[in-house]
Amino acid sequence: MSAASKAKRDDPDLDVVVFERGEWVSYGACGLPYYVKGEIQSLQDLVSVTPEEFREERDIDLRTGHDVIDVDPDDRTVTARSDDGEVTVAYDHLLLATGAAAVEPPIEGLDREGVFTLGSMSDGNDLREYVARSRSDDDLHQPDRGPACQFLDTCSGPVGVVGGGYIGVEMAEALAANGFEVHLFQRGDRILKQFSEATSERILDHLRDQDVAVYLEDEVEALVGDDRVEAIETTDDRVPIDMALVGTGVRPRTELAEDAGIELGETGAIATDAYRETNKPDVYAAGDCAEAEHVVTGEAAYVPLALTANRHGRAVGQTVAGTPSKGGGIAGTAAVKAFEVEAARTGILDHEEGRAAGFDPITETIDAKSRAGYYPDGGTVTVTLTADRDSGRILGGCLVSEYGEGAVHRSHALVGAVTEGVTVDELSDYDLAYAPPFNTTWDPVLTAAKVLGGKLEPDR
Amino acid sequence: MSAASKAKRDDPDLDVVVFERGEWVSYGACGLPYYVKGEIQSLQDLVSVTPEEFREERDIDLRTGHDVIDVDPDDRTVTARSDDGEVTVAYDHLLLATGAAAVEPPIEGLDREGVFTLGSMSDGNDLREYVARSRSDDDLHQPDRGPACQFLDTCSGPVGVVGGGYIGVEMAEALAANGFEVHLFQRGDRILKQFSEATSERILDHLRDQDVAVYLEDEVEALVGDDRVEAIETTDDRVPIDMALVGTGVRPRTELAEDAGIELGETGAIATDAYRETNKPDVYAAGDCAEAEHVVTGEAAYVPLALTANRHGRAVGQTVAGTPSKGGGIAGTAAVKAFEVEAARTGILDHEEGRAAGFDPITETIDAKSRAGYYPDGGTVTVTLTADRDSGRILGGCLVSEYGEGAVHRSHALVGAVTEGVTVDELSDYDLAYAPPFNTTWDPVLTAAKVLGGKLEPDR
Repeated sequence: MSAASKAKRDDPDLDVVVFERGEWVSYGACGLPYYVKGEIQSLQDLVSVTPEEFREERDIDLRTGHDVIDVDPDDRTVTARSDDGEVTVAYDHLLLATGAAAVEPPIEGLDREGVFTLGSMSDGNDLREYVARSRSDDDLHQPDRGPACQFLDTCSGPVGVVGGGYIGVEMAEALAANGFEVHLFQRGDRILKQFSEATSERILDHLRDQDVAVYLEDEVEALVGDDRVEAIETTDDRVPIDMALVGTGVRPRTELAEDAGIELGETGAIATDAYRETNKPDVYAAGDCAEAEHVVTGEAAYVPLALTANRHGRAVGQTVAGTPSKGGGIAGTAAVKAFEVEAARTGILDHEEGRAAGFDPITETIDAKSRAGYYPDGGTVTVTLTADRDSGRILGGCLVSEYGEGAVHRSHALVGAVTEGVTVDELSDYDLAYAPPFNTTWDPVLTAAKVLGGKLEPDR
Repeated sequence: MSAASKAKRDDPDLDVVVFERGEWVSYGACGLPYYVKGEIQSLQDLVSVTPEEFREERDIDLRTGHDVIDVDPDDRTVTARSDDGEVTVAYDHLLLATGAAAVEPPIEGLDREGVFTLGSMSDGNDLREYVARSRSDDDLHQPDRGPACQFLDTCSGPVGVVGGGYIGVEMAEALAANGFEVHLFQRGDRILKQFSEATSERILDHLRDQDVAVYLEDEVEALVGDDRVEAIETTDDRVPIDMALVGTGVRPRTELAEDAGIELGETGAIATDAYRETNKPDVYAAGDCAEAEHVVTGEAAYVPLALTANRHGRAVGQTVAGTPSKGGGIAGTAAVKAFEVEAARTGILDHEEGRAAGFDPITETIDAKSRAGYYPDGGTVTVTLTADRDSGRILGGCLVSEYGEGAVHRSHALVGAVTEGVTVDELSDYDLAYAPPFNTTWDPVLTAAKVLGGKLEPDR
């Protein structure tokens, strides 16, 4: 929708047709955990622009309930099926924005009643109904009753969360806040594995402090029960549960592109050039279905997140309307809130990934006060920085702090650094804002750069 | 002290002598308003490293109570006077870190009782005693009695604050929190004039919401009374007061340098090269007494703030210990908290200043939500961006938000941008961290860049 809006705004003479299989468009899927938690009152609140607004105010021919079944790049046509039958339209420019689908992990019993995923608005609705139903029979089918539920005394569940990524961690918070006894299962040896080890550890400790039972290196094998799920069976454990939320990642939806002869990249997502154009002329791909170049490695990467989708969609709209626009690369930046902790990461943290891109990575982690030591109510910001040993170039970074102590917003400095190829010495000389209520004289980001710079010195 | 510490750490064989006129070293002067407010219990809490620690643990020959009366760059000697008489020591390398002094504005009656400034620890002590005395006779000379005072019912004063810069605004908060009726006088047409106009306006409104009486374009002419100040007389007003805090800026302390034939720059502060070396060989100057080069203009500027002093001191220490270090330029970055609002600025915002440096400045200000629109408890971030019209290069920026909504930490993105010469289009393509509890999909910083980019487009 950002492509459609931008194209139409830049060139009102364009005929812009959008096919959407479902009924919802332009919604903040990232808000679904907070809807399930009860902090957001209505699914409608997640919608930025309604279908009616797109049609009436932006003059976009939005066709919901239309499942695109064929793309023909040679004939330049798209065919969609709806309740009214099939329709084929010709195009001059085509954007594939087919998004991502939840990965189906090799677990038995995923089709049992009480097993949920969280990818769509209807998933969010189902989960909220489950939460409401578990709290009180009166609340059945009344998901929009407000956030008060999290303050009730009764404890429901137990419930299982399969996967320790963003969705797993955010849903653990949403469910625990509603009084559920939460069991979270992670196949690997740490949660949030895209973040630094120090961040994974700090958030793990925090989840456990919040009474979430976290199982590491414990592979879920089956969700067992009669019709309804009754227990999670793992390599090591059998845990009785009343519900399971499976959040084990997403994969790009590429079926339509593949059928049309559009090439995928090594990541398995649709390959594009810097303008998001695929190997087929005038066919673009952007968002969770497509790769994009990483600002540190210059190589294609697959990081399906909201800002990239929005930004690249907008760039394609601008290109199609006559001003070729790249929309920039991706830095692999991500942020997460887990109960009362916040974290952000950007760039390359993994040494193997760094070496594959030709770097010699070195990493340092520091703990620093979030405000001046003498200022009240501060916390601790843990900063991890990874740099290339030879050049000193910052490859990536990760921050974690108490919620409100600024780990996420401070990461803005590191995104700039990885994007511009800044060295640790250059970063440690940055004239960042300082006042006692916000940081120590050297912001934690600067301290991390200074300490890592000190580690590099003997080698230079 | 940061120079002394770094030099000694890098080369323990160095003999490092420090002369300090007073008794306090290595203290966080930026914390003084919060000490007066009552949020910090003891002046001692503002001290990072004590004189004893410098002497015993860091092996630095720190001589407090020593007033340096002569520097001879030809003989390479320094002469200091103390209660024990005069002492002259030879040096190989000398750092002048004489700091800044409060400007004495052309106001009659500055020597009256009840007129304060806030530059030193003893100023802080005096002000806290005044606050305590005004609250209760029992508290006389018991400044360390804790923050509870701000919750008392009685209202004291009225008090006057002369100057609407950082100190004026922070002290207005400190005094109002203690129940004083505060009158703040600003000569110019807005407070915090280094910040954007939108920021000045928002903080002005907020001060008035907090019952601070703010007088703009009203020049204070005299502090009148018998021995003790009883009223502030301005061009337009006469306001009865019981105390006046004068915070009208600082000037570099350059007397010692001038007497030694060390050159000052156009700003009136000590001129240095990129290594902080003055025109006299092996004599360095850093901190609030010295100029430094601005990262945007490349020209010398005088911005006396804590991080620059700390960073440049450290660089000089490193240089003297054998590793020549520049310590980086300044971006004119600053942050302030005013009651429940926070703000930060960086780079060049003033168009005249921008034109003087050869740019063609254009400015845009936007209001954006601080969190996803559907997420609870968010506020508004106001972002001002100034860029060069031809190149699109970001020259400066300013943010203001409710306290806790991230204006200051988000400014980290803009400091990087002005330091690296990033354009508005490049910034708007940054892959900044996003999650609903922290921002909208496009962080306010990105939105500002996008909007300003749109304004530039017709001209390119």
